[in-house]
Amino acid sequence: MKRSFSAVAFVILVACQSAFAQSGGAAAAREYRRANELRILREFVRLLSIPNVASDKEGIRKNAALLVEMMRARGLNPRLLEATTEGVPPAVYGEWRTPGARSTIVFYAHYDGQPTDPKKWTGTQPWEPALRTAPFEKGGTIRPMPAEGEAINPEWRLYARSSSDDKAGVMSILTAFDALRAKNVQPSVNLKFFFEGEEEAGSPHLVEIMSRHKELLASDAWVICDGPVHQSGRKQVVFGVRGDTNVEVTVYGPKRPLHSGHYGNWAPNPAMLLARLLASMKDERGRVTVKGWYDDVEPLGEAERRALAEAPSYDEELKRELGINRPEGGGASLVELINQPSLNVNGLSSAETGALARNVIPTTAVAALDLRLVKGNDHRRQVERLVAHIRAQGFYVTEAEPTDEERLSHPLLAKVRVSPGGYNAERTPMDSAIARSVVEAVQSTVGQPIVRSPTLGGSLPLVLIRESLGAPTVTVPVANYDNNQHAENENIRLQNLWDGVETYAALMTMRPPAAR
Amino acid sequence: MKRSFSAVAFVILVACQSAFAQSGGAAAAREYRRANELRILREFVRLLSIPNVASDKEGIRKNAALLVEMMRARGLNPRLLEATTEGVPPAVYGEWRTPGARSTIVFYAHYDGQPTDPKKWTGTQPWEPALRTAPFEKGGTIRPMPAEGEAINPEWRLYARSSSDDKAGVMSILTAFDALRAKNVQPSVNLKFFFEGEEEAGSPHLVEIMSRHKELLASDAWVICDGPVHQSGRKQVVFGVRGDTNVEVTVYGPKRPLHSGHYGNWAPNPAMLLARLLASMKDERGRVTVKGWYDDVEPLGEAERRALAEAPSYDEELKRELGINRPEGGGASLVELINQPSLNVNGLSSAETGALARNVIPTTAVAALDLRLVKGNDHRRQVERLVAHIRAQGFYVTEAEPTDEERLSHPLLAKVRVSPGGYNAERTPMDSAIARSVVEAVQSTVGQPIVRSPTLGGSLPLVLIRESLGAPTVTVPVANYDNNQHAENENIRLQNLWDGVETYAALMTMRPPAAR
Repeated sequence: MKRSFSAVAFVILVACQSAFAQSGGAAAAREYRRANELRILREFVRLLSIPNVASDKEGIRKNAALLVEMMRARGLNPRLLEATTEGVPPAVYGEWRTPGARSTIVFYAHYDGQPTDPKKWTGTQPWEPALRTAPFEKGGTIRPMPAEGEAINPEWRLYARSSSDDKAGVMSILTAFDALRAKNVQPSVNLKFFFEGEEEAGSPHLVEIMSRHKELLASDAWVICDGPVHQSGRKQVVFGVRGDTNVEVTVYGPKRPLHSGHYGNWAPNPAMLLARLLASMKDERGRVTVKGWYDDVEPLGEAERRALAEAPSYDEELKRELGINRPEGGGASLVELINQPSLNVNGLSSAETGALARNVIPTTAVAALDLRLVKGNDHRRQVERLVAHIRAQGFYVTEAEPTDEERLSHPLLAKVRVSPGGYNAERTPMDSAIARSVVEAVQSTVGQPIVRSPTLGGSLPLVLIRESLGAPTVTVPVANYDNNQHAENENIRLQNLWDGVETYAALMTMRPPAAR
Repeated sequence: MKRSFSAVAFVILVACQSAFAQSGGAAAAREYRRANELRILREFVRLLSIPNVASDKEGIRKNAALLVEMMRARGLNPRLLEATTEGVPPAVYGEWRTPGARSTIVFYAHYDGQPTDPKKWTGTQPWEPALRTAPFEKGGTIRPMPAEGEAINPEWRLYARSSSDDKAGVMSILTAFDALRAKNVQPSVNLKFFFEGEEEAGSPHLVEIMSRHKELLASDAWVICDGPVHQSGRKQVVFGVRGDTNVEVTVYGPKRPLHSGHYGNWAPNPAMLLARLLASMKDERGRVTVKGWYDDVEPLGEAERRALAEAPSYDEELKRELGINRPEGGGASLVELINQPSLNVNGLSSAETGALARNVIPTTAVAALDLRLVKGNDHRRQVERLVAHIRAQGFYVTEAEPTDEERLSHPLLAKVRVSPGGYNAERTPMDSAIARSVVEAVQSTVGQPIVRSPTLGGSLPLVLIRESLGAPTVTVPVANYDNNQHAENENIRLQNLWDGVETYAALMTMRPPAAR
């Protein structure tokens, strides 16, 4: 099916896709980007200005509406893919059929972002995008958006929630497509675009949305644009992701807050009980001591082991930059460690610290944990092991607030709440056709060798894509690694966005896996 | 020196103190209170309506001004005792000379209250006093203030910050004085009144204020109205208090928040490091494992040991009420345990839990600790032991944010901040003259035996009074033990206030210690 571009929205673009010429996309993308940096930046700023936490229904709908508008202007025939439940963030879908193409690739990014406390941002606000001359930790200062014709320094950082994670993915993909169209470069494959709206909430409706639109989403593979490039700054292709599940553990003290003088050292202190429980979960080297934690790990294949060995080591630089003297892991490298399941404390709270601290025995202490999983782990089984460990420490485990009877019957009480949306790890074999096509395309954009990683440390629900649609996934990140992803002061280095446009233009013109 | 009452303010009172008759104060107080409950309650509500956190300079001055007004109406010749530094909460002082009296007693209470988060209160607000028909945990509902002539149920609770701690002390003392005057009962001693304004901030200027007004504050003893009566509801005389010092420990992870997937189990997790550190400080039975923690404890005397043995045990009732199956202390009773130094976690924080939790490795984890001290302990020495323990766990200890160089030189970093205003424990011998006079007076108000406690679990800077002024102290609390002191939903049971008025009227007519 042929389509016409909107001449109104993109006056410099050719009028019809049939004018696309077969040629490498990366060079075309560079040329296009150089001529259009300010326009790209402005469109990005507009997208970043809309609050995008998955639980903020109004903000999410506004994001989805803008994405539809952006896709429509590009002739991508957009539509919202909804879940059956009302109020669920929709996926935004679009497509481009390439005449004669025998392979179809889905390009994935997500437009929702992590919740954040605006008070914790320094100088800028999460949904008021602002440029800095450098990372603020390195003395970068806020500067105005460039004027028409002003040179744009690629080392500038754009600060906003999702500037990296993952609206940078959306922009890289859509801008790569713009470049191909502008330069008359024909994609080598059919293009489908799938922008998810609740990835940071754990993708609780992704399976449902995919299942409802199975035919629409049929493809040879998904290319996932999410996560950071390698810490060395080199481009990276990632063949897997860790699984993830979040668990909140609440430990109980007295039913009401007590004066720590009158009752301290008699009433059980939940903060101390939680400390003891957490300390029991890992040894001093950071190895998880929960029974069976590493039992299911599927060993890496030959290609994966070789890629790991060839991966550049950036650990010493990272230690210097992050102010770390001794990492966990007893000497193992970061790339080795992310091929293992992990247990991490995301947060602690019990009564108050700082100015609001009072001389009390708190009533509860809470730990937010996240469990990362690797190939072989099952997220439900891993949580069961954790719960068994908590029980083995003497705790009575409940899923609800303990009743009076439970309180009086058990010396140690823990409420364990597992967040919905946990999922397993996924890994695409590095010697598969799609893996080789993607590596080749990304490698074509740069002179130095790209990094090939068997898995990303982070998580995406890629397993759900393979299980629902049968499609393998390969992840090609664009963000700088020091983007403060998931935290306050998230930012993207502009050069990473520019590089991302080239990468995705190359991917849209890759050697089709069906042709291998 | 003679003084005239203000006939305007207290029309029912006699015109001149010389009309006071020698007689027991408690019966007079009961009679007076029964006829004046609503008026007492209204005056109390007015006092409780003024925000009184020591750091809130404006609120504190308003409290002090009202106290001056209340004392002036009673003919107590009030004045503010100021520190040299401007902005420090003043003590409010007043006095009443009794003709022929050879003993002088200072009655102490404090009018400041603990900081509190109004959002955490249930149904009522800290400085909007409200009556409930019972504790809200037991289904008590909010009810309007009683109308003129309406019966007042003594089981009602008045909810407000400082309703117990310690404006109940102020009201008990001033109302006891009202009762004596109204009923023409002559005090047996000269009365001095000292209401402190920054006790909950650790009394950092108390010594200075006392030293500047040494002659004004000359006395035979101080009677301290603070803390709760015994958990059994029985009246209590307390001969000592624990010392107290607060320490905040901050443990460090990476310099910026990191994605827990990409860096989890490589970057050191400060929440986990803090958990391990805290767990090292106490054993499973709650005994502090810091080296030397119990070394300096001065053994109890014979009278104190006997009083402890005779103290009613309320532990089982407390356990039921507080939902506790197994207290700390390995079976020791609450009264035994408060005669030991303690280490308590008041609060924990690291990144976020709950709805704002994110998949990060936090940059810091903070624990607020309080150390209670008993006779023999020195607060500086006890903190030194704690710091030595933290060092012994491998931590580099600093008082400031760690520098980059410190971060890179030490695997474990802890910032230890000691709050100003720590002080030692104090204990007045139970066989001293003042101790015997006070016990006799309080015992005269009730039929059942009162509880005599060598020490309160809580802390007051009583050691500073003895060191600055040479005066012994005896504490006679009035609040109900379940008053949520230092926490949200603080309240007082009205009967405790009524009893407090009788107790203090009896104390103002005690057998003078000089006459023993």
